[in-house]
Parts: sequence; C-alpha cells; structure tokens
Amino acid sequence: MLRIRPATIQDAALLRTMIRELAEFEHQLEHVTIREEDLARDGFGKKPGFRALIAEWDSQPAGYALFFPYYSTWVGPGLFLEDLFVRPASRGKGIGKALLVAVARIATEENCCGMRWEVLDWNKKAIELYKSLGVELRRDWLSVWLDGDALQKLASKA
Amino acid sequence: MLRIRPATIQDAALLRTMIRELAEFEHQLEHVTIREEDLARDGFGKKPGFRALIAEWDSQPAGYALFFPYYSTWVGPGLFLEDLFVRPASRGKGIGKALLVAVARIATEENCCGMRWEVLDWNKKAIELYKSLGVELRRDWLSVWLDGDALQKLASKA
Repeated sequence: MLRIRPATIQDAALLRTMIRELAEFEHQLEHVTIREEDLARDGFGKKPGFRALIAEWDSQPAGYALFFPYYSTWVGPGLFLEDLFVRPASRGKGIGKALLVAVARIATEENCCGMRWEVLDWNKKAIELYKSLGVELRRDWLSVWLDGDALQKLASKA
Repeated sequence: MLRIRPATIQDAALLRTMIRELAEFEHQLEHVTIREEDLARDGFGKKPGFRALIAEWDSQPAGYALFFPYYSTWVGPGLFLEDLFVRPASRGKGIGKALLVAVARIATEENCCGMRWEVLDWNKKAIELYKSLGVELRRDWLSVWLDGDALQKLASKA
C-alpha cells in the first residue's frame, strides 16, 4: 500500500541514499558531493531551501520528490521539481505519478501558476508519463550551468 | 557610464516593461500575463520570490537580471537566473556580462555552489558569451512545463 508523507530531518540520510540512487540511474553519480548534514541543514533548518515528499510502499521507502519555489516573470510563482525518483523494485505501481499528483496539489494549494522540471532526453518512460499528464516539453531551451572554478572566476572579474 | 543597482519596489513598472521586451525578443510575448502589482507583491513583499538587479547606462535603464535560489541535490544551494536582458540600444557595451558578474558575486558571497539558467538554442550571441565565461551547456536535459488546466487536472487526480 502506498503512503506519501512530507520528509522530516530524520529522513536526511534516506534522502541522501535515494539522491545517489537517482544520480546513478542518470549516470551522474560522480557529480554528487552532498552529505547528510548538508541536507539536514538546508532542508529542515530555519530557512529551508527545499521540501521533499517520501513515498512508502508497504512501509518501505520507495521513492521521493524534492522541490522548491521558482518565479516565472511571465506568469508568477511556481514549484520547481528538482528530483522525482522511484526505486527500481517499486516501479510499475504508479508511485511516480502519485508523487507528481502530490506536488501538483501543493502547487495549486499555494496558488502557484505552474510546475517546471527537467528530464534526460533518453529517459523515454519518464517522458511518456509526463506527456500523458499534459506537460509541455521545450526542446529549444538549453540548460546552462556555472559552478566551481568558473563561478569563482566570473565573480572575481572587475 | 554603467551602474548596476538592486531593484526596489519602485522598479516594478520598469521591470514589467523590460520583462515584456525580453519576451518579445524571445517571440514569447503571448505567454506573459504578469502585472506590475504582481511583481511589486512577489518581489518586494514579506517573502520575496525573486531579487533583481537593474543596469543603468548614463542613468537610463539599460537591462536587468532577475534571480532566485535553487537547490541542487548534487552539490547544494545556488542561484537560478530567470532573466538576463539588455535593451537593444544598449548592447555591445558589456552590460550583459557585467550583470552576470554581479549575480555571480552575490552567489559566491552567499556561499552558493553554482548558478543555473536557460538559453534559447537560436540565441547564438548569448551562447557565445556564456561559453566564453566557462559555462556548461547541457543539451541532453529537456525542460518540462506544466501549468494552467493541465496543472489543475493533475492536482485533482485521485
């Protein structure tokens, strides 16, 4: 049986485990440096930088959704879904969709105008699910990332 | 002469004007419904959903950058650059780069791990500038948008 509940600071270690499982699925594990204490501080402290939902199947952790607010200058506030993950053993039960519904419900309750997220172009199953829910896929926008030394260097320019 | 300053609530009308100019440049003006009062409330109220910098050239508004926090589950907090715009008459003076430097400086001052934004794939001049600053362009991530009726419909699923 499925249960979806808000994550608490007690879930920081579990979240880190599942974050790494997701990154491994995405072939990006080498980029992940986040520690349990980072998640505890950043998600459950005085000024939380994210919120998360944990999905449990028969009381076992089966997946999670992690999100934070964004602001669209076209239409107004929304929720950015940073991560959506269902563990391999728990797939095919509608858990991913249930997590999406739960986040969408929070978005509408909080008067958000929309939700945004990103998907890897080879993740056909996810894309199929998202399309069935009426999303718009924008292939003409490229993701730009600036971090590490390049960020420091830009910040120090005259 | 260039001056970059934080936007205040007095800039809400100016921001809306430049947001619409940017959307027109992007051929997306039909999607823009934001009003001056939305920006005043959402950016300069008790819980601001964004911050903005205004660039002035010889005391005339020449462009803006608008950003808000994000959270990367790989590395931690960052700044998402929602909009970066330089008015046509003020291009070629390095204003876009100066705005990027100013946002990068805020990011490093606030111990952010990175910056993220999006660029339209046909905007070669912007892509060239970003590349010269050491960004990473990720073409394998697709943008997913869910809003309006589709969001309401998803939120109301059992």
